[in-house]
Amino acid sequence: MKEHRIISLETRDARFPLDAGAGSDAVHSGSEYAFATTLLSSSGGLYGTGIALTLGQGNQLVCEAIELLGKGLLGQEIEELMADFSAVAQGLAQHPQLRWLGPQKGVIHLALASLTNACFDLWAKARGVPLWRLLLDLSPRELVNLLDLSYLEDVLTREEATAIFDHHLTGRGDREQIVRRGYPGYDTSVGWFHYEDNQIKDLARKAMSHGFRAFKLKVGSHDEQRDLRRASMLRELAGPDALIMVDANQQWTLPAALKMCQALCSVSPYFIEEPTHPDDVHAHRKLAEAIAPIPIALGEHVPNRVMFKNFMQAGAVHFVQVDCTRVAGISEFLAVSLLARKVGLPVVPHVGDMGQIHQHLVLFNHIAMGHEALFLECIPHLQQHFVAPVRIENGTYITSQTPGCSSDLKGVKPERAMAIQP
Amino acid sequence: MKEHRIISLETRDARFPLDAGAGSDAVHSGSEYAFATTLLSSSGGLYGTGIALTLGQGNQLVCEAIELLGKGLLGQEIEELMADFSAVAQGLAQHPQLRWLGPQKGVIHLALASLTNACFDLWAKARGVPLWRLLLDLSPRELVNLLDLSYLEDVLTREEATAIFDHHLTGRGDREQIVRRGYPGYDTSVGWFHYEDNQIKDLARKAMSHGFRAFKLKVGSHDEQRDLRRASMLRELAGPDALIMVDANQQWTLPAALKMCQALCSVSPYFIEEPTHPDDVHAHRKLAEAIAPIPIALGEHVPNRVMFKNFMQAGAVHFVQVDCTRVAGISEFLAVSLLARKVGLPVVPHVGDMGQIHQHLVLFNHIAMGHEALFLECIPHLQQHFVAPVRIENGTYITSQTPGCSSDLKGVKPERAMAIQP
Repeated sequence: MKEHRIISLETRDARFPLDAGAGSDAVHSGSEYAFATTLLSSSGGLYGTGIALTLGQGNQLVCEAIELLGKGLLGQEIEELMADFSAVAQGLAQHPQLRWLGPQKGVIHLALASLTNACFDLWAKARGVPLWRLLLDLSPRELVNLLDLSYLEDVLTREEATAIFDHHLTGRGDREQIVRRGYPGYDTSVGWFHYEDNQIKDLARKAMSHGFRAFKLKVGSHDEQRDLRRASMLRELAGPDALIMVDANQQWTLPAALKMCQALCSVSPYFIEEPTHPDDVHAHRKLAEAIAPIPIALGEHVPNRVMFKNFMQAGAVHFVQVDCTRVAGISEFLAVSLLARKVGLPVVPHVGDMGQIHQHLVLFNHIAMGHEALFLECIPHLQQHFVAPVRIENGTYITSQTPGCSSDLKGVKPERAMAIQP
Repeated sequence: MKEHRIISLETRDARFPLDAGAGSDAVHSGSEYAFATTLLSSSGGLYGTGIALTLGQGNQLVCEAIELLGKGLLGQEIEELMADFSAVAQGLAQHPQLRWLGPQKGVIHLALASLTNACFDLWAKARGVPLWRLLLDLSPRELVNLLDLSYLEDVLTREEATAIFDHHLTGRGDREQIVRRGYPGYDTSVGWFHYEDNQIKDLARKAMSHGFRAFKLKVGSHDEQRDLRRASMLRELAGPDALIMVDANQQWTLPAALKMCQALCSVSPYFIEEPTHPDDVHAHRKLAEAIAPIPIALGEHVPNRVMFKNFMQAGAVHFVQVDCTRVAGISEFLAVSLLARKVGLPVVPHVGDMGQIHQHLVLFNHIAMGHEALFLECIPHLQQHFVAPVRIENGTYITSQTPGCSSDLKGVKPERAMAIQP
């Protein structure tokens, strides 16, 4: 195999304007998404792209953090690097000065996400396979060597992680059928917070005509009646068999969440997402007990595996929405997926990457860990900016066959790699 | 009173070299401390200095975040701003794009700490009083209006916070005697991780001759015997009546912590600090149950009031080491102190500010909330860099009478304020 040594690390503050209202929720608004983008060029003439989502402002801070944190990757050969990525990831997360800025959270951890994702992209390209295939071709031991499982020992040891992969070598053939069928999607973009009622109706009808049967609506208004009215409207439009998820984006205090979750029962939500502060394990546990059997989904703002472990141990989460552009990239996503599998919870990623990387990861979770192939969020806003955008047909992600992690952005290439490519 | 409108916001990436080994612990090493410094100049010719500690690398990221986050403060009059600082702090913490980088953690939250501390410093200088006096002169209602108490409702409402201050208006006269006596200190700088045994002995003897009776030792070695040997050495030297605290700085996994905490019982530690990952509430609770009655101290890496609330609710912390240069500055420090008072836990701050600001805050906590005047950490390394360094005599902080928060750094002044000062 051709050698791919990392010969340069560059970053790009890539920002993309959104249409009015798109991406809005109860606590976030603005008019752009952005990727703090890592570009790793290899001596073999390839480059890996890593992304971490931000909402625009401050994206440059993550880029600067990538440059501070990633210096040690220069000169490393990608196969050698990934052979023990567990130690690499742990070393970066535990940088003896930069960890003070976290640890394992905030800007510095978003930087690690972007760096890690770039390493995996370069690796998959070097092997000439899509990420899902790359991961499926690894042995249980090779997989576990990718993962920093420190501080999880009370729930998941390395041996137990290996055993989960070992156990699911059986039955893979059946589960691999999903590659051919494609992975189900659900539509988040019908119900942004600042969309008018008519816009939601039009978008929901359009999504239904495109084969979607599961939709998300943003709630968390100061006007409770607005939330209830819109949720009822969507339920009426989509029909009793559709799945409707409501998402408060952390807006409610615990007392408000208790009240609103009870009220929203009237529309039979499939889950209620981010009802309150993302650090508040105890409040989510209290809420879960109070509104059972309605499940709670969360994860888009849970920064690392240790916090996820705490949510799981407390019974405070039912759908694990880990995002590989929020935690430390693909490897920490896999660690959290293993944790979830261990405790019997489904993984339904939040797609800070617009589904580009997660389309690979959910296939792997299903085939190699036996996670249920539930559905993956669809957010179409940035499709035109990716070199190989996700293909969603009849509400289903069509499996990517392009080498890499599908995270390359149009016009976002390293200067160095371009210079040495033929 | 003279008007002080904020006419400029500047930042300084202020770095200070340390002697070899100073500041080292089981997971952090390097050779400098740094302050991400905010300078707010007023139309009245004053300036406020705000600081947040980092370990050097990445300090510039916090400075850039301060500039992004703090723009809205320009033009505000300081008395008006502080009259409802609760809303100001909440607005900054909930910035609709920048909060994605946290929320309320990491670089963006350190920036909020620095900004908030600068506001308080300018305010105290404008009133011509030291911070402790400024706070004591506020009414319970005015105090609560400084605090963002959102997401604490299940433990502490605004009414309960007001009631704590109201209740402690009684007995203030007696508690104010501490201003004259000074606040007890304990010495952290005898036992840094990379110090040799002889250096620890020399420093401990010197500290004892300076009146200290309480000492901290860094543990968390890969060689367990090293930890035990050094702890025994310090106990023998300091005698049975001295207080010895051991600090693992998050190094241990839960299984390792269970083993080492049991072993370290032999030196009767007053508390064990940061035994494992700072996000792991559940692990700390398990450990607390297993090693009772030995108490656990933590907080230097707990980013916000919501996480502190969770530690308290779980019975996973016994000494609350909140740091006003880690949480969102003086106001979130006070919110956490109120929480701790509500649940009956002592506050023993971690001094990312080298005690400069916290010398004021512990006086206030004792006098206005009835917190026990236990002791305050002493770290002497940066004293020469402060305009008005803490004075510690006979192991006791001598009460500062200088207007402001004692956080001005030598040679770190705004260009703008200098230009308009006479």
